[in-house]
Amino acid sequence: MVKPAVINLAEYASRAQKTIKPVTLTYRNMLKDPSTKYKPFKAPILKNRKWPDNRITKAPRWLSTDLRDGNQSLPDPMSVEQKKEYFHKLVEMGFKEIEVAFPSASQTDFDFTRYAVENAPDDVTIQALVQSREHLVKRTIEALTGAKRATVHTYLATSDMFREIVFNMSQEEAIAKAVETTKLVRKLTKDDPTQQATHWTYEFSPECFTDTSPEFAVQICEAVKAVWEPTEDNPIIFNLPATVEIATPNIYADQIEYFATHISERNKVCISTHCHNDRGCGVAATELALLAGADRVEGCLFGNGERTGNVDLVTVALNMYVQGVSPNLDLSDITSVVEVVERCNKIPISERAPYGGDLVVCAFSGSHQDAIKKGFALQEKKKKQGEHLWRIPYLPLDPKDIGRDYEAVIRVNSQSGKGGAAWVILRSLGLDLPRSMQIEFSTCVQNSADALGRELKADEITNLLKDTYNYNNERHRYLTLVDYNVEKVDGDRRVLTGQVEFNNTIVNIQGSGNGPISSLVDALSNLLDVNLNVENYTEHAVGSGSNTKAASYVQLRYRRDSDNEQAAQWGIGLSEDVGDSSVQAIFSTVNNIIHKNEIALPDANSKKNEASSA
Amino acid sequence: MVKPAVINLAEYASRAQKTIKPVTLTYRNMLKDPSTKYKPFKAPILKNRKWPDNRITKAPRWLSTDLRDGNQSLPDPMSVEQKKEYFHKLVEMGFKEIEVAFPSASQTDFDFTRYAVENAPDDVTIQALVQSREHLVKRTIEALTGAKRATVHTYLATSDMFREIVFNMSQEEAIAKAVETTKLVRKLTKDDPTQQATHWTYEFSPECFTDTSPEFAVQICEAVKAVWEPTEDNPIIFNLPATVEIATPNIYADQIEYFATHISERNKVCISTHCHNDRGCGVAATELALLAGADRVEGCLFGNGERTGNVDLVTVALNMYVQGVSPNLDLSDITSVVEVVERCNKIPISERAPYGGDLVVCAFSGSHQDAIKKGFALQEKKKKQGEHLWRIPYLPLDPKDIGRDYEAVIRVNSQSGKGGAAWVILRSLGLDLPRSMQIEFSTCVQNSADALGRELKADEITNLLKDTYNYNNERHRYLTLVDYNVEKVDGDRRVLTGQVEFNNTIVNIQGSGNGPISSLVDALSNLLDVNLNVENYTEHAVGSGSNTKAASYVQLRYRRDSDNEQAAQWGIGLSEDVGDSSVQAIFSTVNNIIHKNEIALPDANSKKNEASSA
Repeated sequence: MVKPAVINLAEYASRAQKTIKPVTLTYRNMLKDPSTKYKPFKAPILKNRKWPDNRITKAPRWLSTDLRDGNQSLPDPMSVEQKKEYFHKLVEMGFKEIEVAFPSASQTDFDFTRYAVENAPDDVTIQALVQSREHLVKRTIEALTGAKRATVHTYLATSDMFREIVFNMSQEEAIAKAVETTKLVRKLTKDDPTQQATHWTYEFSPECFTDTSPEFAVQICEAVKAVWEPTEDNPIIFNLPATVEIATPNIYADQIEYFATHISERNKVCISTHCHNDRGCGVAATELALLAGADRVEGCLFGNGERTGNVDLVTVALNMYVQGVSPNLDLSDITSVVEVVERCNKIPISERAPYGGDLVVCAFSGSHQDAIKKGFALQEKKKKQGEHLWRIPYLPLDPKDIGRDYEAVIRVNSQSGKGGAAWVILRSLGLDLPRSMQIEFSTCVQNSADALGRELKADEITNLLKDTYNYNNERHRYLTLVDYNVEKVDGDRRVLTGQVEFNNTIVNIQGSGNGPISSLVDALSNLLDVNLNVENYTEHAVGSGSNTKAASYVQLRYRRDSDNEQAAQWGIGLSEDVGDSSVQAIFSTVNNIIHKNEIALPDANSKKNEASSA
Repeated sequence: MVKPAVINLAEYASRAQKTIKPVTLTYRNMLKDPSTKYKPFKAPILKNRKWPDNRITKAPRWLSTDLRDGNQSLPDPMSVEQKKEYFHKLVEMGFKEIEVAFPSASQTDFDFTRYAVENAPDDVTIQALVQSREHLVKRTIEALTGAKRATVHTYLATSDMFREIVFNMSQEEAIAKAVETTKLVRKLTKDDPTQQATHWTYEFSPECFTDTSPEFAVQICEAVKAVWEPTEDNPIIFNLPATVEIATPNIYADQIEYFATHISERNKVCISTHCHNDRGCGVAATELALLAGADRVEGCLFGNGERTGNVDLVTVALNMYVQGVSPNLDLSDITSVVEVVERCNKIPISERAPYGGDLVVCAFSGSHQDAIKKGFALQEKKKKQGEHLWRIPYLPLDPKDIGRDYEAVIRVNSQSGKGGAAWVILRSLGLDLPRSMQIEFSTCVQNSADALGRELKADEITNLLKDTYNYNNERHRYLTLVDYNVEKVDGDRRVLTGQVEFNNTIVNIQGSGNGPISSLVDALSNLLDVNLNVENYTEHAVGSGSNTKAASYVQLRYRRDSDNEQAAQWGIGLSEDVGDSSVQAIFSTVNNIIHKNEIALPDANSKKNEASSA
């Protein structure tokens, strides 16, 4: 709130006349010129690229590698029971391809692969990763034996850095190795007469694709494809991993488009992406790769995985959804997904993680809250006109679609404006506070949040409203109306006669005005010997059908006993009867003023006598 | 490790023959066809876009809005003390433009703006945000009065959605409003003779730019620019916010390139980005916008901000750095930055946040660890040849550059291979274990991690090594060498005579071989009445200069007393003297075998007599 203050600009200006020296960066560890240590990634290679003109119009094939790439990167890897729970959650969400383990690496991984093979629905493909080494390949295929659908996933270093540093292998040697491994996999799977019960698919990953020359990536994949001999019905999967994210995501899209337009028999090839997130662009790289022709996305829920993680499949899927494209994954209950992931990974999901984070459907800023409130109001109206498009400021996704609650949408801290508190009151009590009352109440809320130094909870805001305005006389009830009658006297003039009770005494009251409200206020003015004036009055319906009630808001102006200064007080009444609701509003106001000792109650007995003698 | 087992493929195949029905998605909350509720974003508008061919070759101007956009989105906003601490950290890191508050919104924000004005170094510009309303603009300029450098930042809704839902304002009305506000700011700042001590800059944000027609965005900015009359030396800032991220990041780049190529007097305009992260692509959108011509980046450290947050400035800066481009921000001590941000925001930074997250320089997978280890080894070698490029698999950034420790790089869980444990031992004890010893030890580590169900800490791995190999006889010391002498007898033949102590008795020993090691092993074979053979022996220097020690590894083959089966045991010795180090290694092995009751100590007294009679 703006504090009205007399500002002395000259004083402000002079205060800053001292000189404060600029900070000189020390570069204690970082290099001032990092170009001596780090080389930039290679320049884009495509001419006439097509991907920036494309759109994502259908869901890709999804591969969850939560149980393999995700699990291997955990400080505390999952227990067998946790892997089972996670596996069934993935199936329930609609994943049809799941990489479950590295079965040749440990007995635990082997056993879990068997569990997955034996418990997967018939349309779910179990995938296992293996290095290009004969005894490991054999062991892996043993683990997959009997699956309805299985993918053997082999990988080989193709980038210069990996071939030179890690494997000491030339490009020719790499091709020979890849061909040899593919032949072995083929012999042990689709060419083996005893293995015909399984629908075998083959996936090959040139590692790190993003750091491999695109020509060589195509070359090695052509050699592998020639050996495997894929079909259109069962294409070979070429997974083109950003093993480490080393460039801006447009470069990845260029690389994918290059591969997609240079590999032969494109219809027998499924191009798969596998993005890591070292530069924080895993989602972007995946999406731009889909524009560039990728068919399949590998990743993990909420982006678990080595280092900064694999691409977050939840975000990629819901990004499609908010564009009107079904991801073919069901995230109707995102909270349960968060729970499984956090329990099994033992790494909390960031409060700001897209879609799943605690804070992402919250607005704390007053102007945001105000806009959201207006958006909902307009949407209600449009819905009645048959218009169902989602168009709410600051909320690209309807939280209800993923099972999240609107209650969390608007939260109130000391930075919030009038909109936030008003929204909470609307959601909790059904009261649509008049605008000037919203402004007044938001100051109370801000003061309270400032004093507590934290966000107010919804029930604290509701209680604050009830306290501040003696809501429906729930807090203070010095004076109650026993009975009343309003008679039309002449023209617009009405006279009210009635009885009020206070201090256990019933006293007659009388007043006049141009309607029941002004007559009652006049009668109370007479009783209390003050001049009460109606400054504001509004009412609206709350709820619908047989539960409908009326809410009334009244603001009375008066002079305080103590200093004879003008003051104003709002009150709120709620009742099934409209007339009674306005009476309750007036009494809520008057009782509040009495409670604050700004107007005194008269002596009940003298008033009783007065009334009798009248 | 691969468990050698007889596999019955037919049994495996049969076990999986049961049929499990495919899962049908329920779509309890999500829509099966979301196109009825969500409209896709508008298609790309550019023809012949240039940005995909560009590269980021220099740092942008940075604006931190941590204290404004970041703070307003916190469940518990910062205290004044926390804002001060944060402000000084930003200055220390090298930020030259800092948006400190919304001074017209509250007294707290006003007062903090004054603090910043009075405490900013002379080259730091203090920026304040304000709505396009006269009394709020006045109050804001009061708050900035006396600053050496100040930016007044106004904003106005320009998108259809915001204008219609929130403000009920036509395009013409919006332009009129923006012009009016700009005139007011101009009058109160650079045109005011009393305000000439300040270098005033003006920033205007058309909100939400990404949802505004690009033609209208240019139109309203032209009108604002005509009023402000910027110069080349002090350009007007047009901030083009992705207030809500609503499209893939290439669309944002198209929008920025459109604006940059259509606004007039481009040399007097600074194009600023302000990306939110609703689709998880804030970093990507910012980077592609820089390719498209943006000059300035607004955001927050580690991506704090409304909902999913603002773009993470740390990631954008370090992404440049690892491409050899200095960001002009000093993140030499990222740990201290994390500490300030977490303390003030009270929201933990994700363990997988790029660069700053706890887990992002960790490798748990064995093959990753192995590759990293090889990378470091090669780098050491290249360094000696004067080659300083950073080229380590899986580590795009040298952790030392941001003050992070190598110790954290490799961590060991049950998924780790031989490389990880060996790395820890190399870092902690300086021991470069022989390869076959690495393989054996990694199995011990895996078993231990499996049994604990969690990652092993470095000191646990070190202790496990000491336990397993009776390192330097630290654990078991049944038998010690008192003294010895080796004499050359003829040709290569050597005879060792000496004394060992066990059971408090000193016993003479004698043996022969072609060197001191084989002679000592022969002497111990005689003493223990077994056949000990040296299977492996290596040694290397540890440390350098006067601290240099020698580490020796010996593996002895023998037959166990119990079952007469072949067995082998490694041992490790460390000493300043090479000869002594190999002796310690042999005794470490023998003492370990004795400890395991695989070979028995003889009766000391009978041996003593034997020795005396010899």
